[in-house]
Amino acid sequence: MVYFDNAATTKPYEEVLKTFNECGADEYFNPSASYSLSFNLYKKIGDIRKKFISILNGDVESDNIVFTSSATESNNLAIFGSCFNKEKKYLFSVGEHPAVYNCAMELKNKGYKVFFIPLQKNGQVDYDKLDNLCDNDVCFVSTMFVNNETGAINDLIRIRNIIDKKAKNCVFHVDGVQGFCKIPIDVTEARINLFSISAHKIHGLKGLGALYISKGTKLKNIIFGGGQEFGLRSGTINYPGIISFYKAAQTTCENMKKNFVKVTNLKNYLREQLVKLNKNKIRIVSDNECSPYINSLIFEGNRGETIMRFLDSKGILVGTGSACSSSKVGNRVLENMGFNKNQILGSIRISFSADNTKGEIDYFITCIDDYLKNINA
Amino acid sequence: MVYFDNAATTKPYEEVLKTFNECGADEYFNPSASYSLSFNLYKKIGDIRKKFISILNGDVESDNIVFTSSATESNNLAIFGSCFNKEKKYLFSVGEHPAVYNCAMELKNKGYKVFFIPLQKNGQVDYDKLDNLCDNDVCFVSTMFVNNETGAINDLIRIRNIIDKKAKNCVFHVDGVQGFCKIPIDVTEARINLFSISAHKIHGLKGLGALYISKGTKLKNIIFGGGQEFGLRSGTINYPGIISFYKAAQTTCENMKKNFVKVTNLKNYLREQLVKLNKNKIRIVSDNECSPYINSLIFEGNRGETIMRFLDSKGILVGTGSACSSSKVGNRVLENMGFNKNQILGSIRISFSADNTKGEIDYFITCIDDYLKNINA
Repeated sequence: MVYFDNAATTKPYEEVLKTFNECGADEYFNPSASYSLSFNLYKKIGDIRKKFISILNGDVESDNIVFTSSATESNNLAIFGSCFNKEKKYLFSVGEHPAVYNCAMELKNKGYKVFFIPLQKNGQVDYDKLDNLCDNDVCFVSTMFVNNETGAINDLIRIRNIIDKKAKNCVFHVDGVQGFCKIPIDVTEARINLFSISAHKIHGLKGLGALYISKGTKLKNIIFGGGQEFGLRSGTINYPGIISFYKAAQTTCENMKKNFVKVTNLKNYLREQLVKLNKNKIRIVSDNECSPYINSLIFEGNRGETIMRFLDSKGILVGTGSACSSSKVGNRVLENMGFNKNQILGSIRISFSADNTKGEIDYFITCIDDYLKNINA
Repeated sequence: MVYFDNAATTKPYEEVLKTFNECGADEYFNPSASYSLSFNLYKKIGDIRKKFISILNGDVESDNIVFTSSATESNNLAIFGSCFNKEKKYLFSVGEHPAVYNCAMELKNKGYKVFFIPLQKNGQVDYDKLDNLCDNDVCFVSTMFVNNETGAINDLIRIRNIIDKKAKNCVFHVDGVQGFCKIPIDVTEARINLFSISAHKIHGLKGLGALYISKGTKLKNIIFGGGQEFGLRSGTINYPGIISFYKAAQTTCENMKKNFVKVTNLKNYLREQLVKLNKNKIRIVSDNECSPYINSLIFEGNRGETIMRFLDSKGILVGTGSACSSSKVGNRVLENMGFNKNQILGSIRISFSADNTKGEIDYFITCIDDYLKNINA
């Protein structure tokens, strides 16, 4: 089996499962209880918070991390926890994952002043149009770090600088899921207020996310209950899960540079092989500036869905856009980048992990070649 | 170590961790992806939904189960997903867990017509007062199944009958956490619309909950994103977690009767020993009609907190009210049952699992005896 859908989810590291197992069996106490065994777990979680802040290059002394059940929840908390003044303006990149985009749409439906920042042809936020949209009424901007469909990397420092020119005290939220532990991030330099991350995209377990919160950033809770996570996220603290999340982050982060080189080589190799094959108008959407982990391809005149099914029958798993989107009507991201409906229909997504190999790409290329030959035969 | 805090959380079964591990390692695919391996996982989750509905005695053909990250989230979804008409009335038992009570308070703060149903001295909902509160404007009633502090079991069929006399088409939500797989439940007979459950209270893993939804019950989502779980709960589906949740439910449910007898014997034995010891006004709050799993005790003239710490030093872990409540000011439940502040200060909670033994109770009694002798020496 060739797994090329790592942007949808990744295979957990063995040591992540091992850590989870050990904590689950032995340290199952409720960290909010008052006896010493529980208190020790609570203290350990405090240390883990600092380690996550450190990975993000935040201020371990004054910034915070709130653990959630997913990046979706983190995004919802960041947005609905920040946006409650109908007089102000809220900006969202149009290329956002549904976990941000659909929150923005909900705000819009409720009568909030929501504006969408268009994308450039390369998939990045259109910085000039962001500049045009910014004024002193803008109090919240949300743009993702790395696009989940194209791998386009937004220049977060540039975005923050644009915001700060006109919108004072604006909260800057970043959905960091596809960049975290893959592309270096410095939340301090980019003056990011809120940064959402997920465990299962970096070989951790599903059901675990977190939200980084910079010092002084005001946030309301969206889930009510026992008041865990500084009142921002009620529900029994998932100690084994959080420990396993850090194990995944630590391992992936330690190997970030090495993995990046490896995956960049895979990306380059894929591009070379596709170019060689390109008698059939294969279009590589994701350029060299994109994250090497995510590669959007368009097979013009073909249906991505059909190619995906053919590859599935050959044991190759690829994506057709975001797996998170259960009922897809067109593709907002590619559409905004200027692709037409026919091109969009022909898109597939190859997303790598550092475990993928050139041999797997060779096999993929052989299968694609077969497919295109048969189609055109 | 003697673990008497099973109402806060339970030790996961070995087979639960094993199941989770196996699924996590091999079936890590995103169930929302379109290839066959993912589709198979999605189909299996559909089967698991039916099995959960079956455990609750719902209608497997038309009722539904939505998987969440916790019972706290299930309760929030049930309440905020149902309550959005400020003209109507919303009733909550005053004895609810903070995951329900604090949602009710949030509704009240937002200007909704929220009313609290008082408790009887035995900890059950005051049925007469519920009757007085009910009228045709009441569209939502939330009462828990088993109280997490006292073990008091509410008569859900009686509650539904009272509601139906005056409030037509009223949604009935039940926080079922402390009763699920411990006390028989029939959601069909009690005409329950929404029933919240949790994995980690029945030897499953933390981070997993579910909400039962009866046919025709309208519900809005509170988390926005990719539209998983029928649009009611976005976020990547935690397949390994859900499978492990069912493993916990299946095992606990299969042993429900046997466990109930065993834990009832433990409860009776605890009561006998406490009565023998009772030269110091030990008050057993939880009567014979309460769930045997949860036993609230009051040591009049003593501080529960101090007793808890003393027992902790002896390797016995007990609760002092709900572990979910991080900053406790008094105790709403015991107060409403008529206990005074001094009595409440002296309360501890002994909550059993079927793994506890009479020998552990003997050791507890010896330690309590020592403590009281030293205090009074």
